[in-house]
Amino acid sequence: MRRLAIALVHHPVLDRSGATVTSAVTNMDVHDLSRSARTYGATDFFVTTPIEAQRTLVETILGHWTHGSSAQRIPTRKDALEIVRVVPTLDAAIAALGGRDQVEVWVTAARTEAGKEALPDYTAARARLRGGDPRTVLVVFGTSWGLVPALVESADARLPPIQGVGSYNHLSVRAACAITLDRLVGER
Amino acid sequence: MRRLAIALVHHPVLDRSGATVTSAVTNMDVHDLSRSARTYGATDFFVTTPIEAQRTLVETILGHWTHGSSAQRIPTRKDALEIVRVVPTLDAAIAALGGRDQVEVWVTAARTEAGKEALPDYTAARARLRGGDPRTVLVVFGTSWGLVPALVESADARLPPIQGVGSYNHLSVRAACAITLDRLVGER
Repeated sequence: MRRLAIALVHHPVLDRSGATVTSAVTNMDVHDLSRSARTYGATDFFVTTPIEAQRTLVETILGHWTHGSSAQRIPTRKDALEIVRVVPTLDAAIAALGGRDQVEVWVTAARTEAGKEALPDYTAARARLRGGDPRTVLVVFGTSWGLVPALVESADARLPPIQGVGSYNHLSVRAACAITLDRLVGER
Repeated sequence: MRRLAIALVHHPVLDRSGATVTSAVTNMDVHDLSRSARTYGATDFFVTTPIEAQRTLVETILGHWTHGSSAQRIPTRKDALEIVRVVPTLDAAIAALGGRDQVEVWVTAARTEAGKEALPDYTAARARLRGGDPRTVLVVFGTSWGLVPALVESADARLPPIQGVGSYNHLSVRAACAITLDRLVGER
């Protein structure tokens, strides 16, 4: 499998009305996505927010779990949170992985009209993840109502929306990330 | 597909040391599991806790989202939380689905030594969910460090543990539920 990383973007994302906003970092997102990433072999989980105070807060929480008393108490949480990296922008995440020509950016979107044609299905995505391309695959998740169209369009590929049964597909980002990683990496 | 329901058990569950405890209800579990259940066509999501004050709290939160101002503001959350039913025990959930002879209970466990042989794989579980058995399938998730052995042993079947890559599989229950439902119901 190619090197795999994930990113959770808090800006620029859409709000309910379609406006571009910065969402607040949710503590449980950091925990859940790091545990899912660690379970499925991702090497890095980038939490991206332009708000310096929120980056500082996340770093403090990470220190508590990776070096504080909780690191001894629940070492499996330490193992997960050690792969978290806090950065101001998605570009900074890409730079940390070696720069734009070393990274293939895959975006996720629940909306089908997201402005970039999706890969045909997860079978194709799995095959691409196991191909010979030397670039790292960075799978990008949006908070709030999702990534802004410009960010979707700038990606190299878009994963298909996750469909359940019927038209309802309002999964939490914690659930969507877990399902996406299981579909890409999990046993079949 | 057979009728599908899920339950999240807060007692009796194991703590880190293996003792039997009652865990606290986590607000985000109620939201995330209801959204995943609704996405994958489950008809009911039972939140089971013996603590009356916690049941009252969950009912208050549900009222806020299904009848309060938030029901107008975010109607997709209302659609999800409408399937939540708050009950004191797993037996009460089974009774609400018609009683023990109307329900096939499937437990989940991350531990491989969980005291009941698991179904061979999710392909077998998918086939069983689509079989002709008239009973409702109730998939049971544990909080904290998982369901106590007696509860696992009393079930009709156990789903295989979710394996990622390597030995780390400390998923949150929010992630595990999402992946389980996707493996059982999601498009293949």
